[in-house]
Amino acid sequence: MPKLLIVSRDAKAYRQLIEQANLPGLEIATDPTECDIVLGEPRGIRDLLPRLTRLKWIQSVYAGVEYLVKPGHRRDYILTNARGVFGDLMSEYVFGYLLTHEKKIFERFRSQQARHWDRTESGLLRGKTLGLLGVGSIGSHMARTAKHFNMKVWGFTRASEDSQDVDVYFHPPELLKFASGLDYLVCVLPRTEGTNRIVNADLLDALPPHAVLINVGRGNAVDDSALVEALTQGKLAAAVLDVTDPEPLPAEHPFWTTPNLFLTFHTSAKSYAEDITKIFIENYYLYLAGKPLKHQVDFERGY
Amino acid sequence: MPKLLIVSRDAKAYRQLIEQANLPGLEIATDPTECDIVLGEPRGIRDLLPRLTRLKWIQSVYAGVEYLVKPGHRRDYILTNARGVFGDLMSEYVFGYLLTHEKKIFERFRSQQARHWDRTESGLLRGKTLGLLGVGSIGSHMARTAKHFNMKVWGFTRASEDSQDVDVYFHPPELLKFASGLDYLVCVLPRTEGTNRIVNADLLDALPPHAVLINVGRGNAVDDSALVEALTQGKLAAAVLDVTDPEPLPAEHPFWTTPNLFLTFHTSAKSYAEDITKIFIENYYLYLAGKPLKHQVDFERGY
Repeated sequence: MPKLLIVSRDAKAYRQLIEQANLPGLEIATDPTECDIVLGEPRGIRDLLPRLTRLKWIQSVYAGVEYLVKPGHRRDYILTNARGVFGDLMSEYVFGYLLTHEKKIFERFRSQQARHWDRTESGLLRGKTLGLLGVGSIGSHMARTAKHFNMKVWGFTRASEDSQDVDVYFHPPELLKFASGLDYLVCVLPRTEGTNRIVNADLLDALPPHAVLINVGRGNAVDDSALVEALTQGKLAAAVLDVTDPEPLPAEHPFWTTPNLFLTFHTSAKSYAEDITKIFIENYYLYLAGKPLKHQVDFERGY
Repeated sequence: MPKLLIVSRDAKAYRQLIEQANLPGLEIATDPTECDIVLGEPRGIRDLLPRLTRLKWIQSVYAGVEYLVKPGHRRDYILTNARGVFGDLMSEYVFGYLLTHEKKIFERFRSQQARHWDRTESGLLRGKTLGLLGVGSIGSHMARTAKHFNMKVWGFTRASEDSQDVDVYFHPPELLKFASGLDYLVCVLPRTEGTNRIVNADLLDALPPHAVLINVGRGNAVDDSALVEALTQGKLAAAVLDVTDPEPLPAEHPFWTTPNLFLTFHTSAKSYAEDITKIFIENYYLYLAGKPLKHQVDFERGY
C-alpha cells in the first residue's frame, strides 16, 4: 500500500486536501523509512534522502528542483516537479512590472509628492517586443499575456517551440541578435550548468539602452557585477530581480542600492496547495496504474 | 466640396495622416467660416463654434465631449467622438495599478531601501472581482483583460449589456449591492448630470475596506471630501485617480497628500493620431455617402 510523506511548510493544507480527495489505497505517514512517495519542498526532501529507503517517487511542490538533481545525490526514483501552475502567477508579476515601467508609476508618485501636475506621456506595451529567455510552460503563459496586450513576442530556446504566441524563435548561436531587438527581456530559466551567467556583459551590451530585464528564473543566470555596471552606466533602463544568488541577499550586496534595480525577494509565484495537489492527484492515479508520471524531471538536464 | 478644419495640438500629425489617405474631394482649410467638417479637441473647437457658419460635422479626438454638449451651445450639427480606441490603453493603465497593488510594488521597494528581505506574500488578481462603473467600449475591454487574468467581472450599467466578459450586470437601484461585492471598482463614466458625485460616502462605505477605487472616467463622479475621509479612516485600501475636478488640481487640494491616494494627472490614455485618423476616415466615407456616422454623440445624454 502506497505511503506518502509530506515535507512542506504547508503540510497541514496538503494533508487536508489529499485526505479530502480520498485517494484509493493511499496512507499518509510520518516515518521516512516507510514511505515510497514524498510530496514537498526540494530542500527539505534533500535532507531526508538517505533515510527514504523505500523511495519510488518524489513530487516537488516547486518548479525548481536544483537541490535534488545535484551530482552525487541518488537518482534511483522518479522525480516530478510542479509545472503548468505558475504561468498565470508569473504573468501577473511580470506584467505588473512591465506596466509599472511603461505607466511611470514610481515617477508619477514622486511628482505627486512634489505637487507637480506631471503630464509626461506614458508608454505603451502595445507594439513593444517581449523576449523570453526560456519558453516552457511559464514562458508560454507570458507570451499569451503579451499577445493580449498586442505585444510582439520573441523566444530564445534550446529546443521547445510549442507556443503559438511566440512570433519568432531564436536558438543558442543567436543570443545577442535576439537581445538586440528587445524592449523587455524576461529570464525564465531553471538553474543548470548551462544557464550560469547567461545574462552577462555581452548580453547586457546587446540589449537596447531603453530595455528592462526581469529575472523570475534563478539567480545563477545573471552576472551580478555586469548587471550593476550596466545599470550604473545607463546601458539598461531597469532590472527587476525576483531571484538572486544567494537568497537572501547579504546586507552588503550592491544590488540593494544599484540604481533602477528592483528586488522582490522570491515572491513572484507561490506554490498554492490547491494547485499542487491537483498535480499530485493526477500523478497518483498514474502511479497506481504503473503509467508514466507527468512533469518528470530529467536528472541530467536538471529540469 | 467638403472642407476640413483641424483644431488640435497634434494638427501636424493629423494633416499628414489625412493627406496620406487621399480622401476623395476633401480639402484641408484654415478659415473656420469655410469649413463643414472639424476634427480636433472639444475645448478648442468649442471656442470656434460661433464662427463655424457652414458646420455639418465635428469629429472629436477625445471620448469626453463635455465642452461641446453643454446646454446653451449649438446642436445643429453631427457630433462624433472617439470610441473603440482607448480600451487597450485604459486596460494597460488600470491593470498596471491593480497589479502594483496586488504585487505590493511600492512596499517591496521600501523594503529594498531598508535592506529588508521581505517575504510578505503577494496578492493575486486571479479570483478577485472587478467592478466596472460604466460598461461601454472601454469597460468592455477592461472586462476582457480581467478575464485573461481569471478575475470575476461585475458591471454596473444603465442600459448596455453587450460585453460577453461581464459575469453579472447590476442596474441603478443596485449600486450599493454592486459595490459591496467588489475587490476593485473602476469608474469609466462620462461627465454628465447623472454621474455627478456617484462615488459618494454611501458608495465608499459599501465597498469592502480592502477594495481599491480607480477613476479613469471624469472627476465629477467622485465626492472629493468623502473620498479623503474614506481613505483617511481606512474604509478603503487605496484610490487611483487619473481624473479630478478641476484639472490641474490646485496646489492646496487635499488629494495631493491623502494617504493611499495616487494621482496620475490625466495621462492614462492619450489620443494617438493614427488611431483617431482611422475613425475619421471611416466616418468621412459615410459622410460622403450621406449615411449615418459612427460614434454619434447624443447631445441630451451627453456622450
